[in-house]
Amino acid sequence: MTSMENLISLCKRRGFIFQSGELYGGLKGMYDFGPLGVELKNNLKQAWWRAMVYERDDVEGLDASIIGHQKMFKYSGHTETFSDPLVDCKKCQHRMRADHMVDTSKCDSCGSEDITEPREFNMMFKTHIGPVESDESVGYLRPETAQHIFVNFKNVVDSTSSKIPFGIAQMGKAYRNEIVARNFIFRVREFEQMELEFFCKPADAETWHDYWLEQRLQWWERQGLSRDNINVVDVAKDDLAHYATRTFDLEYKYPHGFDEIEGIASRSDYDLGNHTKDQKELNIQSEVHENNESTMKLAVRDEQTNELYVPFVIEPSAGVERGVLAVLNEAYCEEELENGSTRTVLKLPKHLSPIKVAVVPLKKNKEEIVNHCKSIKKDLMRLGLGRIYYENTGNIGKAYRRHDEVGTPLCITVDFDTLEQDGAPVTIRNRDTMEQIAVPIAQVSDYVRDFYLD
Amino acid sequence: MTSMENLISLCKRRGFIFQSGELYGGLKGMYDFGPLGVELKNNLKQAWWRAMVYERDDVEGLDASIIGHQKMFKYSGHTETFSDPLVDCKKCQHRMRADHMVDTSKCDSCGSEDITEPREFNMMFKTHIGPVESDESVGYLRPETAQHIFVNFKNVVDSTSSKIPFGIAQMGKAYRNEIVARNFIFRVREFEQMELEFFCKPADAETWHDYWLEQRLQWWERQGLSRDNINVVDVAKDDLAHYATRTFDLEYKYPHGFDEIEGIASRSDYDLGNHTKDQKELNIQSEVHENNESTMKLAVRDEQTNELYVPFVIEPSAGVERGVLAVLNEAYCEEELENGSTRTVLKLPKHLSPIKVAVVPLKKNKEEIVNHCKSIKKDLMRLGLGRIYYENTGNIGKAYRRHDEVGTPLCITVDFDTLEQDGAPVTIRNRDTMEQIAVPIAQVSDYVRDFYLD
Repeated sequence: MTSMENLISLCKRRGFIFQSGELYGGLKGMYDFGPLGVELKNNLKQAWWRAMVYERDDVEGLDASIIGHQKMFKYSGHTETFSDPLVDCKKCQHRMRADHMVDTSKCDSCGSEDITEPREFNMMFKTHIGPVESDESVGYLRPETAQHIFVNFKNVVDSTSSKIPFGIAQMGKAYRNEIVARNFIFRVREFEQMELEFFCKPADAETWHDYWLEQRLQWWERQGLSRDNINVVDVAKDDLAHYATRTFDLEYKYPHGFDEIEGIASRSDYDLGNHTKDQKELNIQSEVHENNESTMKLAVRDEQTNELYVPFVIEPSAGVERGVLAVLNEAYCEEELENGSTRTVLKLPKHLSPIKVAVVPLKKNKEEIVNHCKSIKKDLMRLGLGRIYYENTGNIGKAYRRHDEVGTPLCITVDFDTLEQDGAPVTIRNRDTMEQIAVPIAQVSDYVRDFYLD
Repeated sequence: MTSMENLISLCKRRGFIFQSGELYGGLKGMYDFGPLGVELKNNLKQAWWRAMVYERDDVEGLDASIIGHQKMFKYSGHTETFSDPLVDCKKCQHRMRADHMVDTSKCDSCGSEDITEPREFNMMFKTHIGPVESDESVGYLRPETAQHIFVNFKNVVDSTSSKIPFGIAQMGKAYRNEIVARNFIFRVREFEQMELEFFCKPADAETWHDYWLEQRLQWWERQGLSRDNINVVDVAKDDLAHYATRTFDLEYKYPHGFDEIEGIASRSDYDLGNHTKDQKELNIQSEVHENNESTMKLAVRDEQTNELYVPFVIEPSAGVERGVLAVLNEAYCEEELENGSTRTVLKLPKHLSPIKVAVVPLKKNKEEIVNHCKSIKKDLMRLGLGRIYYENTGNIGKAYRRHDEVGTPLCITVDFDTLEQDGAPVTIRNRDTMEQIAVPIAQVSDYVRDFYLD
């Protein structure tokens, strides 16, 4: 736990996260992931994919286009209702989100009371597809990955023979044109989601909803989040979206306060019901938009009754950047050492660390030492763990400080002992315990493999 | 080698690639990657990242926002010149790319000769950032990932202490609003790139250009592309972009003919020169746009002369979808078997296969067999190879056909021998040779690990 300022500073200094377009003054609500950030983010996504797709037998993956068909967002309801209330200050022209204003009768920027009534601002980014700029060519950057899953329901079922209950998982970019972006990478305009749409029989929806709540809490704990820092909010009936029968919000204790990291919604048959053709024949239970343009029937046959029905959906939907921020917040430590000095260390779970092992030569220009380092790196690369870093600074103390700060679990140092002693021992230093042990060079690969298998 | 129709049909039937928005009639030039496509695409990207970042000591990674700052595209030259010539038919309103017309004096669609003169159509997708729609709020979906690398040059150098020569690698979406999308996933409006910008001293640019050409050819061969199917085109001086000093195009023999899969350009100091501040002090050799808005100096100090200079750039830039199409094309085989029947098999390099191992129970409802299968899957998951598929159809012949067709290198069958014989042998079938061998269940994990280490 630390301040947002500490995290932002570390992220910039060590190459995790930069403001997008910084060189031209910055783009608000957009961020670039640097050399270490891209690894951390990908490791978190990979951990989700592994848990949601690889470790299960009932989930298929998907990676759909980001620009979406306008009709998809018409029938999903986004074109009409995906908006936030916007207020203008008539004096200074500042624009604000009405429900986030400090004082609803005064401009947040200049304090004037001469402000407009709130009006709805659609948060979808709009563009035109192809060379003709017309109403027909409008497309939107998806505000969630979910809709692409629903409209691909039949394609996935037909190509995989999936049977209810099963899910479709997707990770990728989504865009929301926030009126005000804030809290670093928490509320941004371009971000990534990790979404599962899990399809089940209507009668089983409640059981699966509870199941996924538990699964997702366990998963976040495996990413290093303390259970004490997560609140499960059973969203009150009055606050639910009109299609949802029940929603659990997972709120994490960020530096700026408890805020949503994931939502787990029970969405009934609203989604597939909106996008299916032949709506009237399917006994849809939700109130859906009438749809005469869909070309596919999004229904399955009940094996007992032999009747067609539209499956219900449970949706665990998590934010990647919000996950990265929580993971960094949880991992960041400043430890006082025995000698009175302080070290900053990122105690990331090892599967999330951007660099898996740093290989450090005692001297950077001593050829024999350098050759050993390169050969160790080559051996470790074969383990397929991720980034193995050849740290060629020639300053061991500095290397340890740097790798503590970016969360590298192991540093391997090759020194004169390696060249001169029997068995050619290298020194392996553990990030968390700071213990250093001698391991013969021939056993390094096995040692590292076992360390990461744990 | 096969026809585009065969590839499209396989991709749809087996869940590799679907038309985006198909349910609403389709979005031209946009595709969704299904359950197997997402794995194949990610495996190809992972192979690139491994070769470009993990296996080297001189390349850092980046993952920047897709929406880009308008000033970035102003100074890169995209706003002014990133366009294709567009022709309108006055009779039927059809729009065409002038340089792709079958007959430049007649409409491709209706044959009318009443067509407009070509005019320039900017291919960038445009949108507005934030709640105010004005000239100042315009942003573009990046038409290449490269510009984000250039504007982050200083951020990366400062956070990693990288020294020339070094590179920055990035993979991710890019958008080009093609006048006409065509040839399946070859010419599309939304796609992914894998780009390296390699920075070097001006005097070393030619050597590095040759080096990267060789590296990239070797890499494509490791992805299963035959060297005979790649032409290296040394682009004629007259056809070069004005900033490039020399470009090698790698053209692959697609079903529709030889076409570009990667470009390797020597771009001089044009890119960093365009985006740097203090242009006049830096002795820039290219003709760059005058820039008084940049806030960062994109130059390094020569260690010998102690003078500041703007590094030259070598850029190997490959298309992910174009890579996927080439890999599929190369892997697709129809083999005649000894019994006279034919099998379709995707002979993908094993690191690219969407499914690494299929575990097949002889009977799907026999509990002991199913338990063995699940325990094998669990063991194999620990190897971290990717997707291990529990194939629960209860029909071995069908499972083999399916896994041949999607390129699964190994199928492991658990049958009654496993339950009854000493050592509990399972049958491991090799996709390419169709050989089946018996392996004791306790040795399966080692067998598979060694198979993939090769």
